[in-house]
Parts: sequence; structure tokens; C-alpha cells
Amino acid sequence: MADLLLRNVRPYAGPATDILIAGGRIARIEPDIAPPAGTPVEDGDGAIALPGLVEAHTHLDKTLWGLPWYRNEVGPGLLDKIDNERMNKRRLGIDPYRQSARQTVQSSVKGSTHIRSHVDIDTDHGMWGVEGVMTMRDEYRDIMDIEIVAFPQSGLLRRPGTLELLDEAMRLGAEVVGGLDPCAIDRDPKGHLDAVFALCQRHGKPLDIHLHEPGEMGAFSMDLIFERTRALGMKGKVTISHAFCLGAPDAALVDPLVAQLIELDVAIMTTAPASRPAPPVKRLLDAGVRVCAGSDGIRDTWSPYGNGDMLERAMLVGLRNNFRRDDELRLALDVCTVEGAKVMEVDNYGLHVGAAADMLLTPGETVAEAIVTRSHKRRVVKRGAIVARDGVPMRPAP
Amino acid sequence: MADLLLRNVRPYAGPATDILIAGGRIARIEPDIAPPAGTPVEDGDGAIALPGLVEAHTHLDKTLWGLPWYRNEVGPGLLDKIDNERMNKRRLGIDPYRQSARQTVQSSVKGSTHIRSHVDIDTDHGMWGVEGVMTMRDEYRDIMDIEIVAFPQSGLLRRPGTLELLDEAMRLGAEVVGGLDPCAIDRDPKGHLDAVFALCQRHGKPLDIHLHEPGEMGAFSMDLIFERTRALGMKGKVTISHAFCLGAPDAALVDPLVAQLIELDVAIMTTAPASRPAPPVKRLLDAGVRVCAGSDGIRDTWSPYGNGDMLERAMLVGLRNNFRRDDELRLALDVCTVEGAKVMEVDNYGLHVGAAADMLLTPGETVAEAIVTRSHKRRVVKRGAIVARDGVPMRPAP
Repeated sequence: MADLLLRNVRPYAGPATDILIAGGRIARIEPDIAPPAGTPVEDGDGAIALPGLVEAHTHLDKTLWGLPWYRNEVGPGLLDKIDNERMNKRRLGIDPYRQSARQTVQSSVKGSTHIRSHVDIDTDHGMWGVEGVMTMRDEYRDIMDIEIVAFPQSGLLRRPGTLELLDEAMRLGAEVVGGLDPCAIDRDPKGHLDAVFALCQRHGKPLDIHLHEPGEMGAFSMDLIFERTRALGMKGKVTISHAFCLGAPDAALVDPLVAQLIELDVAIMTTAPASRPAPPVKRLLDAGVRVCAGSDGIRDTWSPYGNGDMLERAMLVGLRNNFRRDDELRLALDVCTVEGAKVMEVDNYGLHVGAAADMLLTPGETVAEAIVTRSHKRRVVKRGAIVARDGVPMRPAP
Repeated sequence: MADLLLRNVRPYAGPATDILIAGGRIARIEPDIAPPAGTPVEDGDGAIALPGLVEAHTHLDKTLWGLPWYRNEVGPGLLDKIDNERMNKRRLGIDPYRQSARQTVQSSVKGSTHIRSHVDIDTDHGMWGVEGVMTMRDEYRDIMDIEIVAFPQSGLLRRPGTLELLDEAMRLGAEVVGGLDPCAIDRDPKGHLDAVFALCQRHGKPLDIHLHEPGEMGAFSMDLIFERTRALGMKGKVTISHAFCLGAPDAALVDPLVAQLIELDVAIMTTAPASRPAPPVKRLLDAGVRVCAGSDGIRDTWSPYGNGDMLERAMLVGLRNNFRRDDELRLALDVCTVEGAKVMEVDNYGLHVGAAADMLLTPGETVAEAIVTRSHKRRVVKRGAIVARDGVPMRPAP
């Protein structure tokens, strides 16, 4: 919980000002602040100041970051990828503690200060992932706030014993219940959703469910999620990740879904995938739906892409949604900052007096320029301390 | 036409070797070459060697690179963007000579050695663009080979006088005739296509036509292009840029188009747009269709995105086409290298003895890693001379 005087920074690319941080919180935002005795001073050089980026959907436990290159020869289906990963996790040395630390540090140097991570739970690996990521997050608490979603990656009902492990993960301290494609993977939408919602009820925790199911199938699953959200009084406590079905071209299918997102305050997470139908970000934001973004897996056995840079994700959100205007690019940034913070229910998030001093300083004339340029010359502030400069972390990964 | 001994490089991420360049061409590829007297030696440090990247579709004359940030508040339609640009070109100081030089240098430091640029021709600006880019390419010939497409950005028949200007541009030395959306913009597909094909015939030059028209309209225009390609004996001499209609989900529409692409050896250029239907790259390559890629406009009044990095474009091609496997990412690289060279009919392109020594050296274990990492530590070789290191050009832009 550090003190710091940031000189000559431009919040959201506005006029230059100073920001005084005291005890890890923003104490004053005004020009020409005299540094209190003993407070370190950082010259911002006119950099844009943004609130810390929010990585609202990733898989810290499964990245191959820092390991030898993995030659991807995996088959095309979802189950090909699921089975390939589960069977090779130990062989490839995907140690959840070490790998999640590597990705956390990488995300930090790119400007993220908050991460929601799904963590695999299956009957082959039990609590290996959850325990590894929990140990890591305690050790790296000074650079990142991390929320853990207990995630049945290999399916829930189709692999008996998984539900009990999910329950155990919640008892160990996971903050969010996860789920996955109740039709397509578990082949039992009622059973799957009843089970994960029951876990939410038992532990008093929110839900964040992966829903890749497209078109009518996805709309059906989403409708079952809405029913349970309403019946169980979980308004504002459910996130649907991916939600490809919201990208269907059929208004008769999509419009009723959007109406229920609004009514039940269900949040949407998108990676802005270029090769799949994707939720219409501007339409949802305009309707008041919380829309956050994430990298999904970064350089893992599923996909070679990704680097944890949520400014790059903002660019991809912009490209996917054909955002060209400066006001649209601001929306893309919001999805990677304030909207993610709403989904994670982060207290005191933002660039205002009283907010936690979690910040990204990046060069640029405008917010749009910061997104399209994605400069390497970033400084990252977490709880008032500078934790990364120019891509170099103050504290390296294992 | 330089001499150079590259030590310890890995062509296409294969085994380490040396590459001897003599008179701007690759003379030998083998380990432990003794440097001929007077030949400079460059230690490759085990970098991957790739043939120079090929930017097969951009608009050098209209980038805002290096100018104050342009706040984009343009309307949503294609004509909004066309008219906004034409009306503001001089006001914003988009000098074709200076701006094309800036983008050429930027592309060079990212590893491109060949560019096909469409250059605007309209009745407001006449030859301003073509003359500026031609002067620039003479001056920057040591870092880039540039091919100019005479491009009727504001429409051809709808603005009388434009056709005569296009003819003049071809006489001045433009290498390729351009065209644009014969239905949607010119509202006269027969008239537009007859005119541009006539120019091709008169000057003995190929055609590269922008075709954004989606679905049935695009298929109709494409069919008219095929008719003329066949009738005029222009097999292998036509490129269709964007070709969104090939991304339609309707096989009954797309399959006959693909059959004609194969028969007439018509090439396809894609930017791999995330927000539009896009040509299916793997399917087309597998069928033997030449598929190249380009950045399109870079940071201009149309769009704020882009940086001229064709490794980033390879990543976007991969993301758009859901390429995850290493063999698929190699296809994405091919689209940004050899396929572009085929479309531009570049002589002696590639990494073989006798080829022009145009190369990118980049760190990485595999080609896929080079694409997803997009390191800044690149060295670029043009005609045997090192023209950029670590993002710094040997010769800066104005």
C-alpha cells in the first residue's frame, strides 16, 4: 500500500495533471502537487493514465508460456482439444503454480491489474490446478488481484466425481462457480445447469459459464440459464462467457436473449473471436449490459495466440466490431477496464479520488492511439507501487 | 546489390546454416562458409530467416502516419468514408510523397520487402498521388520494391474524367489497373468492368479490383469479372481484393465462384477482416488459388488500425481462419510471403540459391512462434544489404 506522486500524466488522454497516491489509493488529482515528505516522485512524461486493465477471462493454469514450443497437431473438435490437453498436462510440464505465475507477470507488464481465471478441475488432476494458482496468487498479490473460477473443463456430469471436486474447490476458496456447454459437452443441459446453480446457492457465489454453443442450441442453453437466474434470485450474479449465439444474424433469436440479459443483469464476456459469431459489443453496452473481455487461453495446447495484452484485446474487440471512430475505440477500452471491473465486482476501481491506485501509464496522444499503437513503453502501478517498466517486471516470474 | 555473409541463421526455422549473398542474390546456403575477402559478416544469432514479407494490398498515399492524431467521427457508409477523405486530403496535409515514404519505411522495419499499393486517382487530385508515390519509390528503391495500382477510389463512371486520369496514370508507369465495387459504388457493373478491362488491354497490364460487395451482389460482379477475364485471355492476370462474397455461408453461391477462380487462375487478396465475411484461405490454397494478404489502409481517415507489420497480418489471417496448428500458421505466413510474390509476379523470390537476397531475420523457435510473438528484434535484408535493425531503419523517413 504505497505512496507515490505521479507528475505530468493525462487521465484518459485529457489535460496533464499530477496524481498523489497515499496508502495505495488515489488521494488527489490536480496540477502541481507538492510531494509530501518521503513520497517518491515519478515523472509521467505526459503519458496517458488509464485504470489498470482487467483480464476478465483467461486460463492461468494452462499456459505454455516459457516452455519449449508446443507443436500443435490437434484435431478440429472441442473434445479433441479437451482430451489432448488433459492427457498431456503432466507430460508437458504444465505446472499450474509455475505457469500461472509466468502468465500473471506477463499480464502485469502489459498493464493488467485484475484477472479472472478459470482453473481446470477434473478427475485426473483433482485440486492440482486450484491449489497451484491459489499458492501463486498469494505470492504475487502485490502485482495482481486474481479471482478463481472453478472450471469443469473436461465436462461435469460426463465425468462422475467432477461435481464433488468443484464443491471442494469452492470450499478451498474459489470465488466463482464455472460451467461449460451444457448441451454440447455434457449432453444434459438440465442436469448440468441444475448442478452448477446448486453449487452457487450452496456457497453463495456467482456463476461464470462458458457457452460456445452457437445458434439455436446456444439460445436454448442461455434460456435455461435465465430461468434459473430468475428463479434463484441471482440477478447480477451470472456471467456468460463467449456467448457465440448472440452473434447469430437472426434478430428473432437474438432480441429476446438481449431483453433477458438486460432484465436479469447477466454479464457477457467476449474474446472478440474473428472466426466465430460474436456478441455485438456496442449494442449490448448501449442497452446497459455489462460486457467484459478476456484473452482466453494464452499460448496453450488449444491455441498458440495471445500475450496477455488487454490493449491488444481492445484492438481485437475494435476490429471484430468494426469500431473505427474514436468514441467506439473508447468503448473497446471500457470493455477491457471498467466493464471487467464491474463483472469482477472490484471495489473502488477507476481513476478518481478514493480509488485503488491501479494504473497503466502509456504514451500516446489519444486513447485510440494507445490502443492501435500498443506501445512497449508502459509503466504499471499496482496499489500505488510501480510494478513494471518498459516490459520489465520489478519481480520476475519463475 | 550488396555482398553479405549471414552466419548462423535458420531458414524457415530449420537447421542453422550460413547464407552467402553476392551481388544482391543468394549465392550459397550451407554451414561454415568462409567469408570472401571484403564481404561483410553478420551474425544471425540463430534467428529464423524468412523471405521478405510481401504487403500485397495497401494505400501508401493516404496514411496519416506521423501526422497529429486524426479524430475519426466519420459516418458508417462506404461513401461517407470516400467523400470524407477526398474532401479533407489537402486540409489534413496528406502529401502522397511524404506519407508514402513514412509508410514504406515503417513496412520495411517490420520486414516487408515488396509492396503493391493502390494509389487514389480522382478528378479533385489528378496525378498528385501517383506522382508523389512514384517519386518516393525511386528514392526508396534500395529498401522496397513497390508496384502501383491506378485506383479510382471515388468511383470511375460516376465521376466523369476519372477514366482519362486512370489512362494517364497507366501511361506514367503504373503497373496495374485498379477498380472498385462496380455495382455498389459505380452503379453500372457492365460499364465499370468494360472500362477497366479495356484499360488493361490498351496498356497490356493486369487488373486488381476492390470488391467489397457481399453475397449475391458480389457473386454477380465476380461472375462479370470472370466473363471478361476469359473472353480477353487474361487468365492469371486478375486479382480480386477483399472478395467478401467468398465468405458467404451459402455453398451454392461460393462453390461455382471457386471453380472459376481455379480455371481462370484469378488471385484473391484478403486482409482477413474480423468484422466481415472473408475468403476461406485454406480452402482456396488447397485448391491451388493464389491467396495474398495486405494491411489495406494504415492509420488513415478510414480506420485507425494497422502498422504495416505483415507478421501481424499473418496472425490476423490465422485468427480469422481459426488456424491453430503449426502447419496452418505456416499457410498464414505463405499468404504474407510467397503467395504475395506470385501475385506481384516477383522474379527470383524466396530462400534459395539464385533468389534475390530479400529477407527477414527474426528470433523464435518455430515459424508459428515468430508469428504469434512478432518480436521487435528484427533485421531486414534488401538486395543483400541490411536496411533495418530492431525497428530502426538505416534510412529514416521524412
